[in-house]
Amino acid sequence: MVTVHLVVPTTTKFEFAAPLSYLEGPDLKLMESHLERGPASIECEYDELVAGPETVAAAIRAQNDGADAIVVVCMGDPALHAVREAVSVPVLGIGETAMHYAAMLGHKFSILCTLDRRRSYYVDKARQYGLDSKLASVRTVNTPVLAIEDDHASTLDRLVEAAAVAIIQDGADVIVLGCGCFKDMDRMMEERLAARGLAVPVIDSPPLTVLTAAALARTRLSHSKRAYPIPPAKERPGYDVPSLKERR
Amino acid sequence: MVTVHLVVPTTTKFEFAAPLSYLEGPDLKLMESHLERGPASIECEYDELVAGPETVAAAIRAQNDGADAIVVVCMGDPALHAVREAVSVPVLGIGETAMHYAAMLGHKFSILCTLDRRRSYYVDKARQYGLDSKLASVRTVNTPVLAIEDDHASTLDRLVEAAAVAIIQDGADVIVLGCGCFKDMDRMMEERLAARGLAVPVIDSPPLTVLTAAALARTRLSHSKRAYPIPPAKERPGYDVPSLKERR
Amino acid sequence: MVTVHLVVPTTTKFEFAAPLSYLEGPDLKLMESHLERGPASIECEYDELVAGPETVAAAIRAQNDGADAIVVVCMGDPALHAVREAVSVPVLGIGETAMHYAAMLGHKFSILCTLDRRRSYYVDKARQYGLDSKLASVRTVNTPVLAIEDDHASTLDRLVEAAAVAIIQDGADVIVLGCGCFKDMDRMMEERLAARGLAVPVIDSPPLTVLTAAALARTRLSHSKRAYPIPPAKERPGYDVPSLKERR
Amino acid sequence: MVTVHLVVPTTTKFEFAAPLSYLEGPDLKLMESHLERGPASIECEYDELVAGPETVAAAIRAQNDGADAIVVVCMGDPALHAVREAVSVPVLGIGETAMHYAAMLGHKFSILCTLDRRRSYYVDKARQYGLDSKLASVRTVNTPVLAIEDDHASTLDRLVEAAAVAIIQDGADVIVLGCGCFKDMDRMMEERLAARGLAVPVIDSPPLTVLTAAALARTRLSHSKRAYPIPPAKERPGYDVPSLKERR
Amino acid sequence: MVTVHLVVPTTTKFEFAAPLSYLEGPDLKLMESHLERGPASIECEYDELVAGPETVAAAIRAQNDGADAIVVVCMGDPALHAVREAVSVPVLGIGETAMHYAAMLGHKFSILCTLDRRRSYYVDKARQYGLDSKLASVRTVNTPVLAIEDDHASTLDRLVEAAAVAIIQDGADVIVLGCGCFKDMDRMMEERLAARGLAVPVIDSPPLTVLTAAALARTRLSHSKRAYPIPPAKERPGYDVPSLKERR
Amino acid sequence: MVTVHLVVPTTTKFEFAAPLSYLEGPDLKLMESHLERGPASIECEYDELVAGPETVAAAIRAQNDGADAIVVVCMGDPALHAVREAVSVPVLGIGETAMHYAAMLGHKFSILCTLDRRRSYYVDKARQYGLDSKLASVRTVNTPVLAIEDDHASTLDRLVEAAAVAIIQDGADVIVLGCGCFKDMDRMMEERLAARGLAVPVIDSPPLTVLTAAALARTRLSHSKRAYPIPPAKERPGYDVPSLKERR
Repeated sequence: MVTVHLVVPTTTKFEFAAPLSYLEGPDLKLMESHLERGPASIECEYDELVAGPETVAAAIRAQNDGADAIVVVCMGDPALHAVREAVSVPVLGIGETAMHYAAMLGHKFSILCTLDRRRSYYVDKARQYGLDSKLASVRTVNTPVLAIEDDHASTLDRLVEAAAVAIIQDGADVIVLGCGCFKDMDRMMEERLAARGLAVPVIDSPPLTVLTAAALARTRLSHSKRAYPIPPAKERPGYDVPSLKERR
Repeated sequence: MVTVHLVVPTTTKFEFAAPLSYLEGPDLKLMESHLERGPASIECEYDELVAGPETVAAAIRAQNDGADAIVVVCMGDPALHAVREAVSVPVLGIGETAMHYAAMLGHKFSILCTLDRRRSYYVDKARQYGLDSKLASVRTVNTPVLAIEDDHASTLDRLVEAAAVAIIQDGADVIVLGCGCFKDMDRMMEERLAARGLAVPVIDSPPLTVLTAAALARTRLSHSKRAYPIPPAKERPGYDVPSLKERR
Repeated sequence: MVTVHLVVPTTTKFEFAAPLSYLEGPDLKLMESHLERGPASIECEYDELVAGPETVAAAIRAQNDGADAIVVVCMGDPALHAVREAVSVPVLGIGETAMHYAAMLGHKFSILCTLDRRRSYYVDKARQYGLDSKLASVRTVNTPVLAIEDDHASTLDRLVEAAAVAIIQDGADVIVLGCGCFKDMDRMMEERLAARGLAVPVIDSPPLTVLTAAALARTRLSHSKRAYPIPPAKERPGYDVPSLKERR
Repeated sequence: MVTVHLVVPTTTKFEFAAPLSYLEGPDLKLMESHLERGPASIECEYDELVAGPETVAAAIRAQNDGADAIVVVCMGDPALHAVREAVSVPVLGIGETAMHYAAMLGHKFSILCTLDRRRSYYVDKARQYGLDSKLASVRTVNTPVLAIEDDHASTLDRLVEAAAVAIIQDGADVIVLGCGCFKDMDRMMEERLAARGLAVPVIDSPPLTVLTAAALARTRLSHSKRAYPIPPAKERPGYDVPSLKERR
Repeated sequence: MVTVHLVVPTTTKFEFAAPLSYLEGPDLKLMESHLERGPASIECEYDELVAGPETVAAAIRAQNDGADAIVVVCMGDPALHAVREAVSVPVLGIGETAMHYAAMLGHKFSILCTLDRRRSYYVDKARQYGLDSKLASVRTVNTPVLAIEDDHASTLDRLVEAAAVAIIQDGADVIVLGCGCFKDMDRMMEERLAARGLAVPVIDSPPLTVLTAAALARTRLSHSKRAYPIPPAKERPGYDVPSLKERR
Repeated sequence: MVTVHLVVPTTTKFEFAAPLSYLEGPDLKLMESHLERGPASIECEYDELVAGPETVAAAIRAQNDGADAIVVVCMGDPALHAVREAVSVPVLGIGETAMHYAAMLGHKFSILCTLDRRRSYYVDKARQYGLDSKLASVRTVNTPVLAIEDDHASTLDRLVEAAAVAIIQDGADVIVLGCGCFKDMDRMMEERLAARGLAVPVIDSPPLTVLTAAALARTRLSHSKRAYPIPPAKERPGYDVPSLKERR
């Protein structure tokens, strides 16, 4: 039995564990936590930054409570490296994981994200992850995260349009949904794209990342502590974190 | 229930499904097939080549027999793209998959492969997969594939040595076992490296790739047929393949 | 006197040696062979694959029969590395050779190939050959290889159109014909492009590659056997190849 | 008259403005601030993260108080992009600036940083800044930031050794001091390296970055607000920042 | 007091020092020289070449006359490396300097240059400087250098148009003026672009490079003589240069 | 009949055409010219520069005198692009050509050049030609060009040593002689390397480049005038060049 803990790095209580409960069973259990202090949604570098401190604390608490793997549920992968420093169980971000799968499912992928201002951020991330040669483009739908739910139908329309442009003009053959909140739209997008002669896989990262984190836990692999050693002890007024308990 | 079919692209009947049966359960079933015509082991570009035709045929038969996902069990990923053209269920190679995980578990990974002559092959593959910026080095142990089993202890010694050099000199913080037949050595290597102050994760790809293939099948994702369309019908004397049945 | 042997890796008996006989003379003789088993034409990764085994065998026979250099006459360069492993005389592919010349004749080149599905293949090849920074684009004319001959005039029209787009939109200043069967169209294309104010060189690779192979043979250079060592002896049921005779 | 404000992103009151007062005059005035909440020093990704929120706030206050340019005085450039979002005056990090100068002063530069664990961080930064092709290596002296002052002589020795290795083995022809606290060592290092036949420039970034920030202010250039737009208004419990005043 | 000497590498007496005299003061003095032999303007590789020999001589004379830093005032940076070999004071080219600043002020920059034929030259330069990943595009206004002055208004119109296309289509968020003679247009362009909702910084390199050269001189940094050693003594009929005097 | 004209860009009358006369015959004739004004040898960026103007003039005269192709015989390829602007017949540099062949003959090549100070120059060139991913290293033998002839035996020794290090430590499987004056050493080096178990091809570029230039001329290909247009007419005091005659 593997417990995967979802850290949703926002103060808005976006639900991911419940909709993914269909993945649970005798082998897999999901947990979830949100932030008390941090951004309501993540749409700029400042949001990425202030999402970080409590995400790290939440991850430490999750491991202390028995999590076997942790998923940071935001496509921008806030604090991903700092979380890996802080804990020993495997930690995946849904952004990094989605890009690696996208690279395996086709030749070139495009990321569809919420706002124009986020484009460079994802280009940078693809480069940091080493996947820039697989990135066809980042395209946007100009929808703030907190508006997606109320605006579901028209967001879907814009995603399909953006995907079509990415496929036809940019040469993408795989589409990555660039916000965790676009969930439930992947299959509908695939159908509507296929109906236009543009059948490609559309990756909604959270379920895939949960199973990937579970795969790491089951095969007893985690990130390299040589790459991500525990932070050195020192004064950090205002940013003390819970101690990590020894794992059995 | 997901069925993952392992295509072992050699005429030697290397066993992978049986040792991985611990991964099986109500959600996962493993199948396996080998080649009748092809190389006894894969150690050069010519071996990669002649492993290909029957690997494609075996994959088509696997999908026709109900496989939900296919894994080509050789670190060189022979015929990977041709198999993706031929079938519609997701297809993973253990080489490509291992490299993507390695990129997520640390900053730089090294691949330990069997023979010096294989070094450039893996450098090329890392570049093709877009992961060259994450590759620290390819190091070798000078052991032919068919000698690994008889030479288990000294192969392990050489792997540990090669890993130590990769970590210290090349800056690797993750190690990838560069031959499916190095299986069972990952945990022993981790322990011996840790005892030398060089604790890093060692990736044995087959179990991880099986669970990754299952993750794709469970989330109903497969490779892009826009990237890998079905081969056009034409004369190919000597290389006819079984027809792919419609999936329900 | 140098003998260059053309291996045409298809069962269709496309003629290359005869139309290139104008290059022959006291210094150069051309030979040619085709496949008995393999694809009628090469238009997908599966075709590349199944063209391979007999291409290797044909190359060994060619060297045994006295060839001083070998050219694999298909822009996809099927089995190129495996052939280099198998023989000691220099081996060139028309795809690789064309791209290197294109890189020397201008700043950016575009490849015009037969089918959309081939685009990624050539992008990958350019990357493998280290020339991705010189590749402006791969554009296609949507003509199956076997239809080129019957459809000569309209294929030429489409090639000119595709070249014009590559020059104007993609910034190409050199054009590479992406199929050996586009032969005879290079000069006509140059003229029609020049008439539109788009004068650029158009590379039809076979004659250039023949002379390049001869240049290697005359200067007694061949590929590095350290890079491409002879395949190790082993069982390969169904894929035995003729023995390579010692060269004098 | 240009006012350059130094934000030192630590709770330790490292002094930079006072030692750089020799740069002040009728054209240039320096200001400085430190953090109340944050890390005592910056030595891991978690430190980078928790240095961020107050660094942004300090930058906004600095602009509100009349700063014409802002320098974040830590080689890791914590929160650099978030600060650029938050303010409109030019913002430079001493890490990014040092690397760009290093690229102009030679062919390859090496960064000498405090701890082994920081190596990958700087490799990543060089890649993010687009300068990876100019980076010869990152080498370390294994000295915690807070120990530099007490350990000045032996730190200098280790820096000279590390620089010599970077020059001889890695091919560096420019050296970048990888910690703001290595200040005052640049000229001594140049002399000792020259005495060993290894004369190269050694870049101590703070004074250079101050003058560079002043150059931007004097020529009325700042970062692109199209690249770094103001963060959108939203709830961010615990991370409210001062409002940015309109500039005249 | 720092003296920055501007070498204008043309026989046309383009004035740069006088319009930049507003930068002079107790800390900074400007000098300027032009060529007797060389091109009237620089618009092709041959111009770059023949601008070189006297540019080197002018730089040596400048240092002998007391210059503390030298700026080669042409966006193509002719003879930049040869000048660095010849002198010991810091030498900057306005092209290289502009690109490094552009990389710091945004995510992607575009260069607007005079003629289509120059496009590849700047792409090559960006690659040589290591900044190709930051280059969005090179766009041109089809105005010969010597026509800019007479054609000021329409050149400005074309620059604004080209910038708009670079921003909207190519994703640039910083614009670099690709000819020293576009001076005085930077602020007007910023205003007109802002009026179209495309506010981005426009870099006119000469003033910025002057202050950057002064910053190097004031912090006693210069290019690495390990990277750019003095040319060896030998016969060079027709190309003798003045001897470099020892600096105090 | 094709006439290939060798422009040796030095005032020293190094002979290349005579030793290559064995390549001449009914199909190929060689011509040669040297400089009156320029460097005695090429060993720094200043030498590259001052070799340029007369090299361009010599190339124009060569074409006017009937040359069908031009080879610039210096590994640094001085003025290569300017020569291509100036003439319409194909122009090859021996440096660029050698690197492209090296990329085809193995996986990684090393260049052995004369002096340490030249190392970065060739690294830059490999990058400019797009071949940096194929370059294993540049190693040097510390022999000035003009000393090679008198010091033939010990230069050969040092070349063999440098090649051995390049093969063993840097992973080269092809060696490029990095100075035209190392001619005649290629076969001796191959033998001595083979005797040490390090058999690799050693490329002496001049004969290969001559045959390559002839191949271009025979297939009626030349560099793209869209990439290298004729220099615009203008005043260039001191650097007038002969007019290019119309070709038939």
